[in-house]
Amino acid sequence: MAKNAYESLLFHARETAALEQVAGRLGWDQETVMPRGSAAQRGEELAAMEGVLHARRTEPRIAEWLAGAEPADEVAAAQLAKIRRAHERALKVPARLSQEIARVTSLAQGIWAGARAREDLAGFLPVLGDVVRLKREEGAALAGGGDIYDAMIDDYEPGMTGAEIETMFAALRPRLVALRERILGAAYHPPALDGSFGADAQLRLSRDLAQVFGYDFSRGRIDMAVHPFCSGGGNDVRITTRVAEADPFNCLYSTIHETGHAAYEQNIDPDYLLTPIGGGVSMGVHESQSRICENQLGRSRAFTGWLLEQMRERFGEFGVTDPGVFYAMVNRVGPGFIRTEADEVHYNLHIMMRFDLERALMGGDLAVGDLEAAWNDRFLADFGVAVDRPSHGMLQDVHWSVGLFGYFPTYTLGNLYAGCLHKALRAALPDLDRDLAAGDLSRANDWLHENLRRHGGLYQPRELITRACGEAPSAGPLLDYLEEKFAGLYRL
Amino acid sequence: MAKNAYESLLFHARETAALEQVAGRLGWDQETVMPRGSAAQRGEELAAMEGVLHARRTEPRIAEWLAGAEPADEVAAAQLAKIRRAHERALKVPARLSQEIARVTSLAQGIWAGARAREDLAGFLPVLGDVVRLKREEGAALAGGGDIYDAMIDDYEPGMTGAEIETMFAALRPRLVALRERILGAAYHPPALDGSFGADAQLRLSRDLAQVFGYDFSRGRIDMAVHPFCSGGGNDVRITTRVAEADPFNCLYSTIHETGHAAYEQNIDPDYLLTPIGGGVSMGVHESQSRICENQLGRSRAFTGWLLEQMRERFGEFGVTDPGVFYAMVNRVGPGFIRTEADEVHYNLHIMMRFDLERALMGGDLAVGDLEAAWNDRFLADFGVAVDRPSHGMLQDVHWSVGLFGYFPTYTLGNLYAGCLHKALRAALPDLDRDLAAGDLSRANDWLHENLRRHGGLYQPRELITRACGEAPSAGPLLDYLEEKFAGLYRL
Repeated sequence: MAKNAYESLLFHARETAALEQVAGRLGWDQETVMPRGSAAQRGEELAAMEGVLHARRTEPRIAEWLAGAEPADEVAAAQLAKIRRAHERALKVPARLSQEIARVTSLAQGIWAGARAREDLAGFLPVLGDVVRLKREEGAALAGGGDIYDAMIDDYEPGMTGAEIETMFAALRPRLVALRERILGAAYHPPALDGSFGADAQLRLSRDLAQVFGYDFSRGRIDMAVHPFCSGGGNDVRITTRVAEADPFNCLYSTIHETGHAAYEQNIDPDYLLTPIGGGVSMGVHESQSRICENQLGRSRAFTGWLLEQMRERFGEFGVTDPGVFYAMVNRVGPGFIRTEADEVHYNLHIMMRFDLERALMGGDLAVGDLEAAWNDRFLADFGVAVDRPSHGMLQDVHWSVGLFGYFPTYTLGNLYAGCLHKALRAALPDLDRDLAAGDLSRANDWLHENLRRHGGLYQPRELITRACGEAPSAGPLLDYLEEKFAGLYRL
Repeated sequence: MAKNAYESLLFHARETAALEQVAGRLGWDQETVMPRGSAAQRGEELAAMEGVLHARRTEPRIAEWLAGAEPADEVAAAQLAKIRRAHERALKVPARLSQEIARVTSLAQGIWAGARAREDLAGFLPVLGDVVRLKREEGAALAGGGDIYDAMIDDYEPGMTGAEIETMFAALRPRLVALRERILGAAYHPPALDGSFGADAQLRLSRDLAQVFGYDFSRGRIDMAVHPFCSGGGNDVRITTRVAEADPFNCLYSTIHETGHAAYEQNIDPDYLLTPIGGGVSMGVHESQSRICENQLGRSRAFTGWLLEQMRERFGEFGVTDPGVFYAMVNRVGPGFIRTEADEVHYNLHIMMRFDLERALMGGDLAVGDLEAAWNDRFLADFGVAVDRPSHGMLQDVHWSVGLFGYFPTYTLGNLYAGCLHKALRAALPDLDRDLAAGDLSRANDWLHENLRRHGGLYQPRELITRACGEAPSAGPLLDYLEEKFAGLYRL
């Protein structure tokens, strides 16, 4: 039976989606199990995959099919919009460039990991220079005379611009900085967690936490990696974690965070599997799912009470029995170097700094050779602490090595969305704390599934959040939540 | 700079080779780490990859380039021959069929694994029926009126036919059966190894053995899988193993076996990396590399003496201290059910049986529904033992589930090649036993590297073996080796 234009498009797009899953799995493999001597070959493999994907996305028949396709409903309309968007984007970027980016970023990631381990910033700068050059070239091709950085943001958060983010960050920053200052000046400071927590027991508990937050292990797995991440979609969504015996919160909350990402992907309507709307709609919405799990739910007073009991049971007594003290420990505020370990107050300051730096880098206002000094100056100004080594500074994150410019701001956008979703969730389930205190996330997971996760890419990010929350996204709910939470915690 | 026809072909072929590596890695992933709920999606991913590969191999420009390409030397001539062969083969098989085979065999493999675990033959037969039907359709397309099974063999052992194999097997069988009967009737029988051998220590020792036999871990890794295998090429060659505490030889010799495959791939001339001649030339030659490591070297009197000391050191005393007794235990002959655990005398009888059965299956002379009865009847006739459960019978091997018809006979071909290579190796290194007794395989590895492995697909299988051995391959050396070895062992 001959396919109509829409069916032809979707058939083609399904195969493309399957191939994107394959390319993504290579990324997972590279960061978890790949032998170190395979890096150069892997670069060739990824470049070849990128060549295939680029050719598929620029396939001339797509334009013909698009011209003849009539969407029958809103799902079909969303599919067509995604296909059109990917097609138009791909046509702007030469195949040679997209393959070169795949090859170089694959290599750069390995170089970054080695440089970070050896505190060897100089060893990383040459390849970072290549990545920045190639990504700027790509950005210019995408922007077509417009703003390069805007074009990049659009890849991760469709419709968003650097100027809008700047405005939002400007709205967020004053109350955040004021809160930070009140906290750092407070008379009371909770103690830090002390002791050593066995790696195996941490991993077992983190698996259980993943299950609690809705991770379906029959369609996923947890491995160890330098940088915790979530990878894949549909029925093969994998997460990673890491373990430090002195800091169990790192492993446990990383796992909850990545579980939020994974549960989003795993809960998208199965009818959308391997289609253009079969993945999370944007990185900001993705981050809202990881953040609401990690912070608003996972670091709540109610849930940390349950977690304390789990930890006492599994690790034996470690000198903390008071749930109030434990809650304060989990939410302890301090100007640490590392973004992924940052508390809820400092986290967005890390992002604002990266946003300004990478925007300057992409705009050509900052050279790769000047990046470290710019990072360290800004960190000292914002956090009041001098960076003491590259791995505590600009070598800490994988993102730039793999060419993810325009990605960082979506983290704060995600926090903001999470603030909005949390407000709506609490309104829908006023007695949610009873569940959390019992380690039962099922009603929260269901609410997120029903109101957000199942939709995949059906709605645009802003529309999706507005539908779920009953109001447009704004910074207010996140700031209200942070101020109330930390005022209580720090007795402000 | 414009490429000439040969350069264009090679550029295209390199990308195809890189994509073949990607597809191979998906296979590795599926058998080692893939979540079980991902099977259907994986089938789609593999089908999409197969579609891409098929399209690349049938690309019309290949014929144009081939018409205009002039090989400058024997390497270029070999590359062109491989490219031509792959192109002509791909043109014979419809894209739809090759994708369907990729999808169905990916699913069938999971169904086989489940059926085997549950002894559920009936649960496997429907999908096996699909695989057989699709492979026969493919075989008919490849054969173009000729013999279907011959066309399939040619995929694994270029130039070989069913009739030639039949002749070789007929030459091998009488002396093999006679040897088997003398052994089973012998007055002396070595004892079986007794005891429990810790899984972790087995795995540590197997890693060390892999290193001894030349595995480069910086470009490979060992994982656990139901079925030991070797996967990948060039700078990413991975092997798997399995562990049974009561039977350490299973893990140790499986690992040595797969290391032979891996060392072949890892030692091909790096100039051939990701080119048509950058992989092992045939499955028979591949198997010669695994078998010579496992059997002629790994189960030799000299090497088992060293292995005994390693085992005593690592597992503690287990009641065997006499190297002669240990050597006999390692080489104990018995009519077991399982091919991969078979001794050197019975192994080829397992293969001959599979060869006849699959040849009948592909020829349409045996129905899938009659296969179990045919298997069990033949096993009883050849081995004198009745199959007691499906996992001891036709469910034991993965091959048919993934459509590998025509592959089994290459195992015996590999044994035969290994016999020839071993004779030549011993002639070149008359004092090799001194090395083996010290667990030092470096000179043997070097000889194999120099005379065989480095060439990749440069020569045809028969030519390669003839060059390495100074004479054409024949069954004589293998039979001489077996008769001498087992006459000594069983005091015949």
